[in-house]
Amino acid sequence: MPKHNRNTHAHVVIGVDLGGTKILAAVVDAKGHVLGTGKKSTHAEKGPEAVIQRIEKAMDEALEDAEIDKSQIAAIGVGAPGVVDNAHGLVISLPNLPGWDRVPLSKALRHWHDVPVTLTNDVRAAAIGEHRFGAGKGTHSMVAVFIGTGIGGGIVLNDRVWEGFRGSAGEIGHIVTLADGPYAPGSGTRGGIEALASRSAIEREIRAALREGRRSIIPELLQEKESTTITSGILAKALKKGDALTIEVLERATHYLGLHAASLINAFDPEVLVYGGGVIEALGEWMLPRIEALARQHAINKHQIERVKIAPAKLGDRAGVVGAAMFAFDALEGMAQPT
Amino acid sequence: MPKHNRNTHAHVVIGVDLGGTKILAAVVDAKGHVLGTGKKSTHAEKGPEAVIQRIEKAMDEALEDAEIDKSQIAAIGVGAPGVVDNAHGLVISLPNLPGWDRVPLSKALRHWHDVPVTLTNDVRAAAIGEHRFGAGKGTHSMVAVFIGTGIGGGIVLNDRVWEGFRGSAGEIGHIVTLADGPYAPGSGTRGGIEALASRSAIEREIRAALREGRRSIIPELLQEKESTTITSGILAKALKKGDALTIEVLERATHYLGLHAASLINAFDPEVLVYGGGVIEALGEWMLPRIEALARQHAINKHQIERVKIAPAKLGDRAGVVGAAMFAFDALEGMAQPT
Repeated sequence: MPKHNRNTHAHVVIGVDLGGTKILAAVVDAKGHVLGTGKKSTHAEKGPEAVIQRIEKAMDEALEDAEIDKSQIAAIGVGAPGVVDNAHGLVISLPNLPGWDRVPLSKALRHWHDVPVTLTNDVRAAAIGEHRFGAGKGTHSMVAVFIGTGIGGGIVLNDRVWEGFRGSAGEIGHIVTLADGPYAPGSGTRGGIEALASRSAIEREIRAALREGRRSIIPELLQEKESTTITSGILAKALKKGDALTIEVLERATHYLGLHAASLINAFDPEVLVYGGGVIEALGEWMLPRIEALARQHAINKHQIERVKIAPAKLGDRAGVVGAAMFAFDALEGMAQPT
Repeated sequence: MPKHNRNTHAHVVIGVDLGGTKILAAVVDAKGHVLGTGKKSTHAEKGPEAVIQRIEKAMDEALEDAEIDKSQIAAIGVGAPGVVDNAHGLVISLPNLPGWDRVPLSKALRHWHDVPVTLTNDVRAAAIGEHRFGAGKGTHSMVAVFIGTGIGGGIVLNDRVWEGFRGSAGEIGHIVTLADGPYAPGSGTRGGIEALASRSAIEREIRAALREGRRSIIPELLQEKESTTITSGILAKALKKGDALTIEVLERATHYLGLHAASLINAFDPEVLVYGGGVIEALGEWMLPRIEALARQHAINKHQIERVKIAPAKLGDRAGVVGAAMFAFDALEGMAQPT
């Protein structure tokens, strides 16, 4: 494979963010510009073969949107919500997509277009995106914390994402923060930060309090929004209205997030901690200053702690596709192994 | 500075392990062979200037022991028990050595012999030693956990120790494992693994139980050994004799260490976790299988968790000097910045 100069070559790649409910594809150039996008529902229940067809359709749509011919695509980079084995082109398992057990996704996508295909974890892809073009831009080390239904993360050290020996580094949602604490559904682990401060953990706590007869504006907001889920938006609204239960639960979650941030700083000592995901998009303005204050208080290196930066993510939804695309560019440049 | 080939050049370096009670110096060749050693009491209470003289005496002794002339020494590598700023040649602070506040140690040691001086944290130095020549040899990623009076660690990724943006990465003793748990004396942080499972944490728990009237063989062993400290050796003896209190406290500490190991695996996904320090030397045979079982149970990546290795450190006391020496060699080779 020829070596490309990232700044001058004309090639573009396709980034794919494979999600449990939707697939986002984007044609991306080497500077991280999104030239066109495609979006399809995943229909995860139909199994891998059908989902792969949906990925191809999303990529076709992105090509059309970018008005670019398939021949101009130099690589495909996929971010998948689970464990992948990039070296062998396999998706090992995806907790929220049934049937994905060692699926040779790279090979399958090369039938669509015969170029190198790279696989990475979706959250690591988003971390790469934030590092190259978002809140981590210009830094050389970064830990990204994405707080949504679950909590995931990505670790960038010396400008490269750290994938781990088995490709599963960055599972910072499963750093045990309250030993013997609550279970995170589906994971089998207890007391990890995901079980304490994800949107679903917050929802569980609020629902438990409601069942015990606590008063709150939440049921009213659920009705008003015709929602069966306590979304981050609903939490933000309840917070704004001063709902005591919401404040109490969010304060507890934020307390754990602050301790978790201190753990990350103590272990990794990164240049910046970047927070993203639905919970942060809705509640970050309230949460981040609190997380920062707690992190400083519990970080061990008091002499240098003032230099820790905590920043909100900047790319939103697009971090994943852009990061997956950048991972593919890196492979083209021989910085990572394409398959 | 000329580039050396690590395998062929004739130079040797001096590694120094600066401790709160003793200073160990060693003449080390590029293959990690210790050619001679020197050992002095630190006399930390006399302040930095006196301690620096003791370092120089330990180095003189090591030269003499190795029958090597000072002119053959190509660099000095120091591991210090606290925060250092290698780029500026400063020891920022050493919690257990009074008066060390931004001391220009590199410059001072160049008066003894005008060669490059590198500074690193003592525990990181030990991690480097274990990675190059000990339990991590042959692996490309490793997290070392040293359990003694406190708990410290070192992180090796892609064969290099990760120092962190502010030079304080690897403070894995301060990963919060039991939110709002006990304080670690001197650190101001709560619920970190150091406060739950270090020798001093174990001693605190046993003493608290004794004050409450619990029966134990420990007071008898303390008398027998004429010790005022519940050493790791005393703990091992009490364990061997089936002392119920000791078993209970060690089981709890080991439980937290297992959860902490899972956190490390989930976050870093290293090739191997290496455990060392006085507690492990005395109790590792009993603790490590338990830590491993718990780690597997709480690690998130069930598909690949079987490949996690947990291994006892191999170099003992010498890991620190050998690692500090290797850090100096790396600087000579331009892989790190000498000062």
